[in-house]
Amino acid sequence: MTDLHNIPLNERYFEDYREGEVLECGPVIVEREEVMAFARRYDPQAFHVDPAAATQSVFGGLIASGWHTAALTMRLLVDNYISHVASLSSPGVDELRWLAPVRPGDALSVRARVVEARASRSKPDRGVLRTQIEVLNQENTVVMSLLATNLIACRPEPNKP
Amino acid sequence: MTDLHNIPLNERYFEDYREGEVLECGPVIVEREEVMAFARRYDPQAFHVDPAAATQSVFGGLIASGWHTAALTMRLLVDNYISHVASLSSPGVDELRWLAPVRPGDALSVRARVVEARASRSKPDRGVLRTQIEVLNQENTVVMSLLATNLIACRPEPNKP
Repeated sequence: MTDLHNIPLNERYFEDYREGEVLECGPVIVEREEVMAFARRYDPQAFHVDPAAATQSVFGGLIASGWHTAALTMRLLVDNYISHVASLSSPGVDELRWLAPVRPGDALSVRARVVEARASRSKPDRGVLRTQIEVLNQENTVVMSLLATNLIACRPEPNKP
Repeated sequence: MTDLHNIPLNERYFEDYREGEVLECGPVIVEREEVMAFARRYDPQAFHVDPAAATQSVFGGLIASGWHTAALTMRLLVDNYISHVASLSSPGVDELRWLAPVRPGDALSVRARVVEARASRSKPDRGVLRTQIEVLNQENTVVMSLLATNLIACRPEPNKP
């Protein structure tokens, strides 16, 4: 059996995601300008867009929108975890938790653990993948976690008529 | 008692969010260029960034990243629902579901329903707000739903010594 990280993203299929497997990736640097630009468009609360006001908030300084952290996490997953040929869709996410502030300059890494990989009951050409995702900063503090569900296509049978 | 939408965003406190109350807001238009720009940075899967490839996908055309839909939803909530003076933080979100494709040109509205508003057990100056959020497109199809948790400060007592 080959570890997931040794299988190129354009050759990964449902069968390659095995329960218990862990893939780590990153880091991505949280850029100050991007924190403010993202928040101005999508989450313009003072502690995300206004450095002076953020200093007076409970966070003591500018922090990234939780949705920005989620988006940066998704990018790491697309670049390192999710198949580029077999990802069909995601029905959703459970237990999304923002556990600690994310600040400009932080370096975020992702630890993805396959907690369930089961064949679809209704469609035999795909499987349901459940992944526990933890996002860690440079001090190894878990800043965000979530449980993701993805539908992943099975490997095509080469000699199928 | 005053309905939530009649209380300005900079005068809303925990006491103003009452169980069963519903606030509707929007729409926001999903812009094609923004769909692709968001996805190029955060979710560069073919059906989000490549119109030609998207036509061959199960979705039959370009769709927005689910995280983009979540971000647009957050903007509607910040502009219409979440207090601008009493929002302390969000511990997280449960049951985030992407139920139907979101396409360029769609007009998304939000329906937010207060499902729980309880005083904090540990900190008497705040409450825990749980909100069921549905995102609807112009055909009234629910495209996304989630259960949000927010910590909201109580109204300061004016004559407190």
